[in-house]
Amino acid sequence: MAKSIASEEELIEQYLAPLASGYPGAFGLKDDCAILRPPPGSDLVVTSDAVVTDVHFFADETPENIAWRALAVNISDLVAKGASPHAYLMVLSFPEAPSSDWMIRFTSSLKDAQEHFGLSLIGGDTDRRAGVPLSVTITAIGTVPEGKMVRRETAEVGDRVFVSGTLGDAALGLILRRNMDAKRFAALTSEDRQFLLDRYLLPQPRVELSALLLKFASAAMDVSDGLAKDLGRMCKASGVGATVQLENLPLSSVAARIAAQSSDVRLMALSGGDDYEILCSVPPAIAEDFAEAALDAGVDMADIGEMVVGSGLSIRDAAGADIVLPKTGYDHF
Amino acid sequence: MAKSIASEEELIEQYLAPLASGYPGAFGLKDDCAILRPPPGSDLVVTSDAVVTDVHFFADETPENIAWRALAVNISDLVAKGASPHAYLMVLSFPEAPSSDWMIRFTSSLKDAQEHFGLSLIGGDTDRRAGVPLSVTITAIGTVPEGKMVRRETAEVGDRVFVSGTLGDAALGLILRRNMDAKRFAALTSEDRQFLLDRYLLPQPRVELSALLLKFASAAMDVSDGLAKDLGRMCKASGVGATVQLENLPLSSVAARIAAQSSDVRLMALSGGDDYEILCSVPPAIAEDFAEAALDAGVDMADIGEMVVGSGLSIRDAAGADIVLPKTGYDHF
Repeated sequence: MAKSIASEEELIEQYLAPLASGYPGAFGLKDDCAILRPPPGSDLVVTSDAVVTDVHFFADETPENIAWRALAVNISDLVAKGASPHAYLMVLSFPEAPSSDWMIRFTSSLKDAQEHFGLSLIGGDTDRRAGVPLSVTITAIGTVPEGKMVRRETAEVGDRVFVSGTLGDAALGLILRRNMDAKRFAALTSEDRQFLLDRYLLPQPRVELSALLLKFASAAMDVSDGLAKDLGRMCKASGVGATVQLENLPLSSVAARIAAQSSDVRLMALSGGDDYEILCSVPPAIAEDFAEAALDAGVDMADIGEMVVGSGLSIRDAAGADIVLPKTGYDHF
Repeated sequence: MAKSIASEEELIEQYLAPLASGYPGAFGLKDDCAILRPPPGSDLVVTSDAVVTDVHFFADETPENIAWRALAVNISDLVAKGASPHAYLMVLSFPEAPSSDWMIRFTSSLKDAQEHFGLSLIGGDTDRRAGVPLSVTITAIGTVPEGKMVRRETAEVGDRVFVSGTLGDAALGLILRRNMDAKRFAALTSEDRQFLLDRYLLPQPRVELSALLLKFASAAMDVSDGLAKDLGRMCKASGVGATVQLENLPLSSVAARIAAQSSDVRLMALSGGDDYEILCSVPPAIAEDFAEAALDAGVDMADIGEMVVGSGLSIRDAAGADIVLPKTGYDHF
């Protein structure tokens, strides 16, 4: 039986304080508050998102994957705004005292994520209550040049609509995670399967894009509840409509192979959640420059459509016919 | 049957967005992130605390009391650091969709608390999952003059130890809330009972003190897990010890009346949680000025003891004998 952690003090001093060692204003987590001092000329950008057992991850998920996901989903929000990750606070809620092994694995993955994204833990809180699901609530703080945060409601008619990477892999990964024997995956290699699982379990926020969004995007947000739903939100907030070409939605080679057998994969690319890709609008005159700069930064941007006069989303198939969606993305509420 | 809220969108637009109307950087909660721009010459002070059903409040608690408590416990941390409340993010986790009546009452109380403490909602997240306890996780942000945040680990040997208001009322209020018929409260009037309940249910952070802490305190923190435990933490962090005179612990007149019958009330003042008073150390040369200035601001500060060479807490009764505590405060973990 693994050793359990005996007190909040032990949890903080032994396991969490090392994650705060790089940030002077965190005071080694010895105080109730931390200090944030943004670099001169910067705004701070803040966001807060929780991951909860059975809502955002499986009850038997590894501590490594839970930690990565909890931080990554917040970083995804920040980079979509053009922000550079700076610091975060974390509230941990446990159903029972975690074992030291669990905490070592959890914090080791958090440390990797911190180093990858470039930020430090600066504060938070921990609680324990029998019967609660494990949850990790993170408030992440980034910096942008003053007044430059990329907004959601500033897309303009005529802008090109771009999405990064590929869509629908995470939705497929979730189906696979639920049922490793599902028929549609029968022909996949173990590498293919791992690719889909990783796309679901280990979101990779597009930190490479934040500077380019500042430079090129008229509006941006991350895609976490499905492209159709999130683009619909951007349209509503911006007071515009959008037309999207279904065949332009970017699929990974693995998803494309499954799509050849199952016609619903392109709909998953539209409606499935957990992509954590970047959706942005770019004025047409600089759209090509943007796509090239992104490619130089290592990210494929797919031009999937256009912002138009009106409201709502119209999705067209290759023949130009409108597609009616059975479901528009995931609502955690 | 009251109408339930149908979607996250309705929850945000109808109920939460009005709480963000006073803060331009919140963008009416229409974006995934908010912008914080501290006034020139300021540091931002951040803290994050959750309140969870059956851990921090009763399952049948009113939405008004839950809302107030969730914000107040965070404000208490800020003001203890000398910070002025500025903005907050809130993550709401529901076991089922709340009714519109519940949300109206919850947000109306939050609005009162916002106005009382002087800050706005700027962001957050909501989730729903059957079986989870209702929880409200708040990240609160305050401002202090650059480099001036009052710390916990900077108490000095010789400093006087002060505590604001009165101690132990909330611990008594909790006992009363659990059992309104408890014998020890039999002689109380209904006003007395309400006083104790309010002290537990509706913490009143000492916002009047934050400016005075900046001016006078060598170290400060709020008392939320019991004076003995929290003063012990301040001593440990500062590398000093403290002596406290039991008879100097400030009791309300109601608590003093109960104390005349039950000898454990003074121990509750030492060890009971949920006081949300301010604990601070002040250099002896300015201790009297501090107490006077606090009184002018409407807050009684009790001089309860002294910071001394050594470590740990020694608590003395009127005869000078050391008191051994049966329990040193509440550990939520």
